[in-house]
Amino acid sequence: MTDTFQDLLAELRAILGTRGFHADPETVGPWLTDWRGRYTGKALGLAAPASTDELARVVRACHRAGVPIVPQGGNSGMSGGATPDASGSSLLLTTRRMNAIRSIDAEARQAVCEAGVVLQTLHEAAAEKSLRFPLTLGGKGSATVGGLISTNAGGTQVLRHGVMRAQVLGLEAVLPDGRVFDALTPLRKDNRGFDLKQLFIGSEGTLGIVTAATLRLVPALADRAVAWVGLATIHHARSLLLHCEAALGGALEGFEVLPQDCLESVLDYLPDARSPLAEAHDWHALIEVVAEDAASAESLRSRVEECLAAAFEADLIKDAVLASSEAQAEAFWTLRDSISMAERARGPAMQHDISVPVERMPAFIEEAGAEVETAFPGVRALGFGHLGDGNIHFHVAAPPGTDRATWEASQGAAINRRVHDLVTAWGGSISAEHGIGQSKRGELARLHDPVALDLMRAIKAALDPDELLNPGKLVTLARESAKA
Amino acid sequence: MTDTFQDLLAELRAILGTRGFHADPETVGPWLTDWRGRYTGKALGLAAPASTDELARVVRACHRAGVPIVPQGGNSGMSGGATPDASGSSLLLTTRRMNAIRSIDAEARQAVCEAGVVLQTLHEAAAEKSLRFPLTLGGKGSATVGGLISTNAGGTQVLRHGVMRAQVLGLEAVLPDGRVFDALTPLRKDNRGFDLKQLFIGSEGTLGIVTAATLRLVPALADRAVAWVGLATIHHARSLLLHCEAALGGALEGFEVLPQDCLESVLDYLPDARSPLAEAHDWHALIEVVAEDAASAESLRSRVEECLAAAFEADLIKDAVLASSEAQAEAFWTLRDSISMAERARGPAMQHDISVPVERMPAFIEEAGAEVETAFPGVRALGFGHLGDGNIHFHVAAPPGTDRATWEASQGAAINRRVHDLVTAWGGSISAEHGIGQSKRGELARLHDPVALDLMRAIKAALDPDELLNPGKLVTLARESAKA
Repeated sequence: MTDTFQDLLAELRAILGTRGFHADPETVGPWLTDWRGRYTGKALGLAAPASTDELARVVRACHRAGVPIVPQGGNSGMSGGATPDASGSSLLLTTRRMNAIRSIDAEARQAVCEAGVVLQTLHEAAAEKSLRFPLTLGGKGSATVGGLISTNAGGTQVLRHGVMRAQVLGLEAVLPDGRVFDALTPLRKDNRGFDLKQLFIGSEGTLGIVTAATLRLVPALADRAVAWVGLATIHHARSLLLHCEAALGGALEGFEVLPQDCLESVLDYLPDARSPLAEAHDWHALIEVVAEDAASAESLRSRVEECLAAAFEADLIKDAVLASSEAQAEAFWTLRDSISMAERARGPAMQHDISVPVERMPAFIEEAGAEVETAFPGVRALGFGHLGDGNIHFHVAAPPGTDRATWEASQGAAINRRVHDLVTAWGGSISAEHGIGQSKRGELARLHDPVALDLMRAIKAALDPDELLNPGKLVTLARESAKA
Repeated sequence: MTDTFQDLLAELRAILGTRGFHADPETVGPWLTDWRGRYTGKALGLAAPASTDELARVVRACHRAGVPIVPQGGNSGMSGGATPDASGSSLLLTTRRMNAIRSIDAEARQAVCEAGVVLQTLHEAAAEKSLRFPLTLGGKGSATVGGLISTNAGGTQVLRHGVMRAQVLGLEAVLPDGRVFDALTPLRKDNRGFDLKQLFIGSEGTLGIVTAATLRLVPALADRAVAWVGLATIHHARSLLLHCEAALGGALEGFEVLPQDCLESVLDYLPDARSPLAEAHDWHALIEVVAEDAASAESLRSRVEECLAAAFEADLIKDAVLASSEAQAEAFWTLRDSISMAERARGPAMQHDISVPVERMPAFIEEAGAEVETAFPGVRALGFGHLGDGNIHFHVAAPPGTDRATWEASQGAAINRRVHDLVTAWGGSISAEHGIGQSKRGELARLHDPVALDLMRAIKAALDPDELLNPGKLVTLARESAKA
């Protein structure tokens, strides 16, 4: 280790103290592998600043020393975006000690959170004020506000409330040279030039490290109605979605779909679970409708029943059941939330987080699914998830009995490329909500609009010319050829 | 004129034909002065491309020749952002011939519009499909989609629907070197890196020329209820706003306030108008509540009456009247929309388009108003407008009988500075919805966060290093000292 590095480590220890800086492998090690276990890197050490000021001083010190930083929130990302490379020349920086909810203004419906606040904690704090933070996802017990912003997270409430970008009213970030960009104070209207905070949302820590945010809250639920619906085809699901949007307006909060095949995997995987409907249907929809005040809550069930009865009359649906209790509603959601685990238990699969324009999704699922099954004989192509957002998780499952490692090594890249080619041809995105990180960088370079890639590189070069923030993720200054 | 210029003009004529290029003063002249008549510039000529392709070829030709371009939509901006400078070395480019609504998808509730589509035209086209484009403002008869996006326009429906940024689902823009950035296809979820389209919204044509956009539509109104309310203080207005938000939820679409003084100016200015309430009140609020379906429409009036009755019981309001007809509703809005004209007729005033955090606005109006009236004896400080957005128009009116030119020359800059200093101290914005253009550039340089200014310059330098797009507006590469 060079003197420069030794000097930097000493400086970091001086800034951060013993609780804030670690170089021992037992402490650092667990954070060098992403939670899916697909990437493992090395780091000079682990910095855990306790404040924006400490974090900014760390970034300034690294900037002077030319040492890259890999920011990390809950380490629950899907694309390896928070895992350093194998060189060991970067500093890993965790925001977990910056975990204060600085304030919740119930009247203005805003929370000011530090980057390390865990999503579940924010949910609970909002609930205490009879409010909700309207974004949730599977990793809520570990995902942090900073990570959710940096990856522009999605989840199951996007249909009504939008993605993470829509929840960010204000933001504070530390720039690659250690200066603090402070746009925490929310203004509903502000036309003083470029909306710079947008740059830090979804840029995966490559332009700045998000240190705090002012987030939007919404009223707590007075009640919810959760329905499970059987459908003849995925096209009927889209028609039902439009029907529900017209009948229920803004009260429709979730609209998830899954094919019979997925439901069967889940029923195999969860021994105590049972299908909500008596008969099998080719497709299923899980619908959540909410009420935020007493008057809406009173009419909620009857409105949903009326909506579904009309859908039945119009031949949009085959069957439907409305959860009769909160426990049954939870059981319906458990079926949905268990698909990924159930599919994993069933055997190897290549998973794709993709979107296309909402109106094209039914045709995409049918046509792209058939094309992939023809191109790779024996595989099953399954699409499930957020139909209302035009976002599905498109899994290509190996033939039964296939060895995972062999199959992934021999077929994985070709399947990924085929799926991404199809999505691109349909005007869609190869990353709807999981981001690019390191896992999709090659595919982004291969398939994304060259003008957009050039713009991203130009902005990266302008803000972080030495590539000191999250190097090797999302965007690099070198033009790269495609790699899988 | 040099050979380079002559060559460029010949090239532009070849690209655009006789309908698309003009250099004669009679045709070009009217577009060289902003509609408020505060700025007049010169131009090499007026380009009026009929398509994105033509526009891109014009930009490429200018890029090669090193000739700057000033883009112009409806020429109804408030800050001189579409008026060239006096050098005569730029090309004025109007989008008015790119005025096709390419498509309206009623099912997906989206319209694809070219930049030159006039707002009023879009309103009418949406209405034909039983939909609405949820943004409106005084200049709707001339303001264009491209201009509204480039200035991130606001208006009177922001409370419920957000500013222009929130209406843009997809966007196409021509970059300073003539390449086309195409992000027109809307995806509800897309995490392929930076959300680049955000950069072109609100950047006033300094980073690219918006050529088309996919815009969000909402259901047409089934009915609306418009109420006029008398209030004891501006603090009561804020309390009433919170009361209405709680009682009416998402149905509250507009919440405007004005002081008695403003109402009197309007009643003087409009001879046939009369005050909606029998007595004078220190403050007034104009409230619009909407219904988008038959069921909500049926209960609309009773819900608003109940809400106002409860407000009266709670001593939030002094008096209120619900418009009994659409004609009366229009009459209420005419009072509101005539304030600017009425104030102008009354005498000279320095006008400021400012915002502060919504919850601080009542105190700001009182305290800043008093401070300005003390600092500039004889003036009246008036705040009126979009209380729900934390955005008011803050007018400082000259003492009666003052000569406009003398007063503006002697007091204008000092008043502007004082108001902007106050807004900045209160955590607000010196431009809430009108943009920076050329009129506020000096004040932005003087008062904005230096880190934000540096970021803007860095991005401008990365995308438009030769400052060929809308030079001298919003952001310039040279660090400038403050000027009024």
